[in-house]
Amino acid sequence: MFPRLPFKMKKEIILKPIGIIHTPYKEPEGMPIQGKFERDITGQVEIFPEYIQGLKDIEGFSHLILIYYFDKAKEEKVIGKPFLEDKLHGIFAIRSPMRPNHIGFSIVKLKKIEENRITFSEVDILDNTPLLDIKPYVSHFDSRDDVKNGWLDKHFTSGKIPKRVRIEKRG
Amino acid sequence: MFPRLPFKMKKEIILKPIGIIHTPYKEPEGMPIQGKFERDITGQVEIFPEYIQGLKDIEGFSHLILIYYFDKAKEEKVIGKPFLEDKLHGIFAIRSPMRPNHIGFSIVKLKKIEENRITFSEVDILDNTPLLDIKPYVSHFDSRDDVKNGWLDKHFTSGKIPKRVRIEKRG
Repeated sequence: MFPRLPFKMKKEIILKPIGIIHTPYKEPEGMPIQGKFERDITGQVEIFPEYIQGLKDIEGFSHLILIYYFDKAKEEKVIGKPFLEDKLHGIFAIRSPMRPNHIGFSIVKLKKIEENRITFSEVDILDNTPLLDIKPYVSHFDSRDDVKNGWLDKHFTSGKIPKRVRIEKRG
Repeated sequence: MFPRLPFKMKKEIILKPIGIIHTPYKEPEGMPIQGKFERDITGQVEIFPEYIQGLKDIEGFSHLILIYYFDKAKEEKVIGKPFLEDKLHGIFAIRSPMRPNHIGFSIVKLKKIEENRITFSEVDILDNTPLLDIKPYVSHFDSRDDVKNGWLDKHFTSGKIPKRVRIEKRG
């Protein structure tokens, strides 16, 4: 089926949580579609003690990229509905947790670091989510001009944030 | 050691490659520090056939987020040196592959989709890298103003891109 693939390409990749993300969201209902749209809610990252040294110098960054595991997502889909509309899209054109690998990605705003706890705002993550990685958000690397946002642009034409929030259980 | 943690939090997380990233970079030497700084080089994502449907509607996006596995990174560090300078920083304040989970993250520019192949530019990924996820880059979600970039800002004060490229083997 994959004649040109070296065998190792089909191998499992084993990762481990490096901490836990604590947030006020116990369920997907009521969570904003993206953290950027809910600036007053805060969450906390609790890093396991063996990784505390890794936090050195992150206090100079205003924003962090959190990469985490959607551990509540039990299904894998190739087609799905986003929160913003009822049309089906390919899973790689939306941010649904029910993707082939349940990897989540959020940009959050750093508020405070105390030992192994990072307080942040701009939260769109469920409580008790296993954390996989933290990377510094670097505007010189991560911002882009002239962006086309596919099916999403029509929801932002007014310049306003769409009011829709997550209202369905999405596993 | 983690008295407050539910046992499941220490559990392994098992992911699988959903495709392969092909690029002209066989070794880290000569790769740009970020893909944004090398706009003429192209790479290709080859998605495994079972996920092709997931590509529906991604052609409307100008940029994609690729999440992949640094399979050549054999070490895990909590402190490391970035490509831009010789000073040590916490691993979560730099983008080094030698992080506790070897997860890579790049924003690339979509050029063309043909069946299960996506051609993109703005490449900073090694050839034959296992792909874990594709997400649409959405400026409404992923851009931030008033960003402070910690130790990195001093390298960009001239408004120019730092000339330094990757010159050491970094596994």
